[in-house]
Amino acid sequence: MNSYGERFRVTTYGESHGLAVGAVIDGCPAGVRLDQEAIRRDLARRRDGAPRQEEDEVEWLSGLMDGLTLGTPLAFCIRNKDARPGDYECLRNAFRPGHADYTYHRKYGLRDHRGGGRASARETAARVVAGAIARQLLPGIGIRAKVAQLGPERESDTRGGIVQCHITGLPAGVGEPLFGKLNAQLAAAMMSIPSAIGFEMGAGFAAAMMTGSEYIDRWNADGTTRTNHCGGIQGGISNGMPVEFRVAFHPVATLPHPVECLTTDGTLKEIAVGGRHDDCHVLRAPVIVEAMAALTILNFEF
Amino acid sequence: MNSYGERFRVTTYGESHGLAVGAVIDGCPAGVRLDQEAIRRDLARRRDGAPRQEEDEVEWLSGLMDGLTLGTPLAFCIRNKDARPGDYECLRNAFRPGHADYTYHRKYGLRDHRGGGRASARETAARVVAGAIARQLLPGIGIRAKVAQLGPERESDTRGGIVQCHITGLPAGVGEPLFGKLNAQLAAAMMSIPSAIGFEMGAGFAAAMMTGSEYIDRWNADGTTRTNHCGGIQGGISNGMPVEFRVAFHPVATLPHPVECLTTDGTLKEIAVGGRHDDCHVLRAPVIVEAMAALTILNFEF
Amino acid sequence: MNSYGERFRVTTYGESHGLAVGAVIDGCPAGVRLDQEAIRRDLARRRDGAPRQEEDEVEWLSGLMDGLTLGTPLAFCIRNKDARPGDYECLRNAFRPGHADYTYHRKYGLRDHRGGGRASARETAARVVAGAIARQLLPGIGIRAKVAQLGPERESDTRGGIVQCHITGLPAGVGEPLFGKLNAQLAAAMMSIPSAIGFEMGAGFAAAMMTGSEYIDRWNADGTTRTNHCGGIQGGISNGMPVEFRVAFHPVATLPHPVECLTTDGTLKEIAVGGRHDDCHVLRAPVIVEAMAALTILNFEF
Amino acid sequence: MNSYGERFRVTTYGESHGLAVGAVIDGCPAGVRLDQEAIRRDLARRRDGAPRQEEDEVEWLSGLMDGLTLGTPLAFCIRNKDARPGDYECLRNAFRPGHADYTYHRKYGLRDHRGGGRASARETAARVVAGAIARQLLPGIGIRAKVAQLGPERESDTRGGIVQCHITGLPAGVGEPLFGKLNAQLAAAMMSIPSAIGFEMGAGFAAAMMTGSEYIDRWNADGTTRTNHCGGIQGGISNGMPVEFRVAFHPVATLPHPVECLTTDGTLKEIAVGGRHDDCHVLRAPVIVEAMAALTILNFEF
Repeated sequence: MNSYGERFRVTTYGESHGLAVGAVIDGCPAGVRLDQEAIRRDLARRRDGAPRQEEDEVEWLSGLMDGLTLGTPLAFCIRNKDARPGDYECLRNAFRPGHADYTYHRKYGLRDHRGGGRASARETAARVVAGAIARQLLPGIGIRAKVAQLGPERESDTRGGIVQCHITGLPAGVGEPLFGKLNAQLAAAMMSIPSAIGFEMGAGFAAAMMTGSEYIDRWNADGTTRTNHCGGIQGGISNGMPVEFRVAFHPVATLPHPVECLTTDGTLKEIAVGGRHDDCHVLRAPVIVEAMAALTILNFEF
Repeated sequence: MNSYGERFRVTTYGESHGLAVGAVIDGCPAGVRLDQEAIRRDLARRRDGAPRQEEDEVEWLSGLMDGLTLGTPLAFCIRNKDARPGDYECLRNAFRPGHADYTYHRKYGLRDHRGGGRASARETAARVVAGAIARQLLPGIGIRAKVAQLGPERESDTRGGIVQCHITGLPAGVGEPLFGKLNAQLAAAMMSIPSAIGFEMGAGFAAAMMTGSEYIDRWNADGTTRTNHCGGIQGGISNGMPVEFRVAFHPVATLPHPVECLTTDGTLKEIAVGGRHDDCHVLRAPVIVEAMAALTILNFEF
Repeated sequence: MNSYGERFRVTTYGESHGLAVGAVIDGCPAGVRLDQEAIRRDLARRRDGAPRQEEDEVEWLSGLMDGLTLGTPLAFCIRNKDARPGDYECLRNAFRPGHADYTYHRKYGLRDHRGGGRASARETAARVVAGAIARQLLPGIGIRAKVAQLGPERESDTRGGIVQCHITGLPAGVGEPLFGKLNAQLAAAMMSIPSAIGFEMGAGFAAAMMTGSEYIDRWNADGTTRTNHCGGIQGGISNGMPVEFRVAFHPVATLPHPVECLTTDGTLKEIAVGGRHDDCHVLRAPVIVEAMAALTILNFEF
Repeated sequence: MNSYGERFRVTTYGESHGLAVGAVIDGCPAGVRLDQEAIRRDLARRRDGAPRQEEDEVEWLSGLMDGLTLGTPLAFCIRNKDARPGDYECLRNAFRPGHADYTYHRKYGLRDHRGGGRASARETAARVVAGAIARQLLPGIGIRAKVAQLGPERESDTRGGIVQCHITGLPAGVGEPLFGKLNAQLAAAMMSIPSAIGFEMGAGFAAAMMTGSEYIDRWNADGTTRTNHCGGIQGGISNGMPVEFRVAFHPVATLPHPVECLTTDGTLKEIAVGGRHDDCHVLRAPVIVEAMAALTILNFEF
């Protein structure tokens, strides 16, 4: 499904080298003056350093009058102006390793072979717009992500890395028990980002190697804790401490040299894929992590 | 929300020291003879070594006739027979560190202080029953989890650990793009288990430190890959290789000696919590991981 | 699906002559002292005059402590004590006319032939309990249904009728545009009641034969209207006037004399169906209409 | 909420005199060549005789490649080319009787006063496009609606009427018990259409005045029935007979002469509303009824 959230529901659409990407946002309150400058700023962060140069101009199709939201669906589109679908002609019948080419083919029987189609990170532009709006609706809550670690730099290769996110100002009591746990929803949100391959709250995997005495966050009398190994969430519900998590991203699978592709007739064939790709997309990931975090939080009642 | 899944929806209920735990399962096909022995076996795995001794007898309230499912909701309850609510009287006005006591209190204004109430791992008994049914509905798909690593053993302390899960027989093409990614749904499912604090697919966090050349899984001509760093999922959709992931669990927060609790009047007070607790619940986690994996897979169309 | 609502979600279960009927209610706020007397009263209204005599004792399995709701799922069951499954043995391989016997068989391949199984009005006992709780959570809102018209009384036959519902105290602004219209949700809720066959708001079908000048509800200066042809809802949203609608029920299909049934081997056969049935179930319908109305309203934000 | 359906989910957007109306369709299978001519034909039926003249050109923003669906979201927009927002300036601070002006204002605190904004029937253009696609995905199922009855024709007034719909080819066994009843879902779908005020299946309100003996549909040996008073649905599930229902529409509330409006400062004021309006929108309703019926059926599994 291409929708995220129930209370503030974002339905994105668009292929990387199709006409446009965009979204419909359902559930935005009425009477809000959207901070278009913040939207542009977040889009610029997402675009920064990308080899493909898009203006990312947001056209608002509905939901606004006199600059104010109407409470009705906010629909927007961002035209793909720097699309070069021809670059991918060689992939019409071939599946790159490390990409979703093969799995989309197996699921749908056909696929958009042009630059990853729907599976491209191009789609995250729509999420970033929605996320910028979500952040505007969460005053007093700070959501900041940054690259915590980068994979090794090698000549002619790509890098992955780890992004760390820190949310301040979230009051205690936000989240749901069981399947609606705030940490579970954050995990799903982060793993929905292209290339995400791991997620951990607070001390995360390291916590598994602590003893209970080392792990538990001891109280201060004001309800804060002296450490934050749990990452600000207990039993799926925020405890008022900063929410902290980390997301691991694997390296971009598109290498800057020929790779062996699987063809639809079942042979292997070396192909130098054209198109323009990042060698380190992790640098552009923090704004996407922030967007998904904002969308996740906004879907909880508080 | 206490429901998991859309196509095979499990709604669990029950507090640890209340009358019963159980669930309603909506979406089970008609005409299935439930494998009650498999259900008992999975419940026994979940119970094995637990200090609290429950029979875990499943009473079927609806949805069955002559031993066959009717296609209508399967409701069941498991009475809490070895409950000892009195053990927790000292916690009525105190919040243990490392537990959900405080966050439930902040969210709801009141809470069941008896053994964690709804947040207790006791609730997972209902998931295990549902998971055993789900597994029966996934013939040919093997779901096996095991403890991959245990935290350090120390006298009078508790341990965490890492559980690894391996799913075989899942055909290529299962999953959805974007927010319905199979890996995203697995992440949410696993993070919904009490004590889960990290999740990674395939090479996971280690993948973030690989170069792209090291990371990408190269093709064999039959569509399998020589490595499985991605954990069997590309772009959110299974590729036909085994699905592999790991879940980190922090140590049980209930220590076998007095701990400083926060009281409702804002003071700190050392309390020796009664009740019966695991010192290494991770040993009992694999069957829960398997149950949630089965429930997750069953909710995809394939 | 056997769930109703998102914010206050009721999942019912149970067959007419199985062990029990009941429900899990998810989304009830914490700290509410359930009015058990009101629940009993509504159950009695539903039961009144029914040939089958059930005590309808509600057993609470979870979600309550010291009589207060915990914010966790409220699960309850009502044992079927006066079930007589043997009465229906003649229907194991035969489909009554006017019942869901045949359609359940076609959908599921098998069915519970005992008194309508899941399709029986017995299931509405669970709705009535949930509805009584919902009403308690809507202080200041009056929901009253009554029989407006009964079908003709004939010796040895059954009757249908029309139930009218009147909701007062609902503020203006409740409802959603388009697919979440309050009137659309009320229509679905009412048509989900066994035997319901028609629904109309305000002037309803008669409105179709008015001219626009006759139809439109003219303003008073205080925002009320001089007439209420629209039934208190405009564009799917309440306008502050009473919400008024009517539900048509067809006569009970179980006649008190032999009827020609279709058998599974494709022949017609006259059968005198045992069991105990109403000759005028409409008299017991108002409390069910009220319950569904309360559940519907409670699912809107206001 | 502005989404309809789960399996084939249509999310519409757009205001009557904003930039565009449109929708995102999620869940359309891959590899389908959309019948654009059928879409144009249905849009023309919706437009036929309307005073506002729109080309209703559908621009496809995503989800198609080489004319085939990709299985990814189909997004489209229809520009509002004949919008005349200035005609409605007099309504900026006034609420027409019989419209959603007041209720939107009460719900959102502000509203698009231009021609009904989101509540305008203009929005149904998006539903008709989605419905035309849905019908293409239901081969063998005929969905035909027609005007069954029109309100009285009077000089300088508007008319309502009744639309009848007849669905053939639907196999037995489609629908869900309880809250997912096919008739309940059809009722909600129809009541979501602007101006709809009543819904009945088969014999409908007249059935309430029949005796049981008159009402029940007697069997033929092949599983068909001699009458179809129930309208082809029993217990919420289709029985293989034609599905038949009727929808009542009240007259258009915009009269072709001045009406007393309520102003935001609480006075009544006679206003001759500009804009262009139908005097008998019921003539254009059948294609919308068909679209909603197709969308409803497509959301059931069969």
